[in-house]
Amino acid sequence: MKVYSLEENKRFERELTKILVHDSPYFRIINFNLKAGATFPVHSHDVEGELSILILEGEGEFLGDGVSLPAKAGDILICQIREPHGLRAKTDMRFLVTIAPPL
Amino acid sequence: MKVYSLEENKRFERELTKILVHDSPYFRIINFNLKAGATFPVHSHDVEGELSILILEGEGEFLGDGVSLPAKAGDILICQIREPHGLRAKTDMRFLVTIAPPL
Repeated sequence: MKVYSLEENKRFERELTKILVHDSPYFRIINFNLKAGATFPVHSHDVEGELSILILEGEGEFLGDGVSLPAKAGDILICQIREPHGLRAKTDMRFLVTIAPPL
Repeated sequence: MKVYSLEENKRFERELTKILVHDSPYFRIINFNLKAGATFPVHSHDVEGELSILILEGEGEFLGDGVSLPAKAGDILICQIREPHGLRAKTDMRFLVTIAPPL
């Protein structure tokens, strides 16, 4: 049993900051910070599994295959790992990605 | 690709409110609301896998096997499904549990 403070990962010196929180055969948990105006480019991986993207702070848009959906704190996107997914930040954003199983 | 607003699940009529957000062979995601003063009792399941508990709002304590650790918004606990885990709410708390793979 381990507890991590995501607040301590809060920093925006770079466009995108990636902090690995946890990795195991069951899931990988990554905390990202995305600077206002920056984009986490749409991508996908051709493997089995799903991922969630939970917005911890800030506002922007979830990006998919030719779609965009509003994203704000408390919103969670769930998709297949092989579905295109990305994010565009309107304000500084912090979000948590959980990938199961990890790539 | 689906987006859910966890803010919309915010309600505290009962001691514990459980809202299933997502269930698949890869992970189960559940949003809980726990009223101030209430306890999500310590429990465990004898199966393979891990879970995370992310605090979305409020303050309290993560509970384990004879241990308690401070829990506040932005904190995330990660443990084996077979490790005893629970939560005690000091203020109204909202949290998100991800179980991989689901029981």
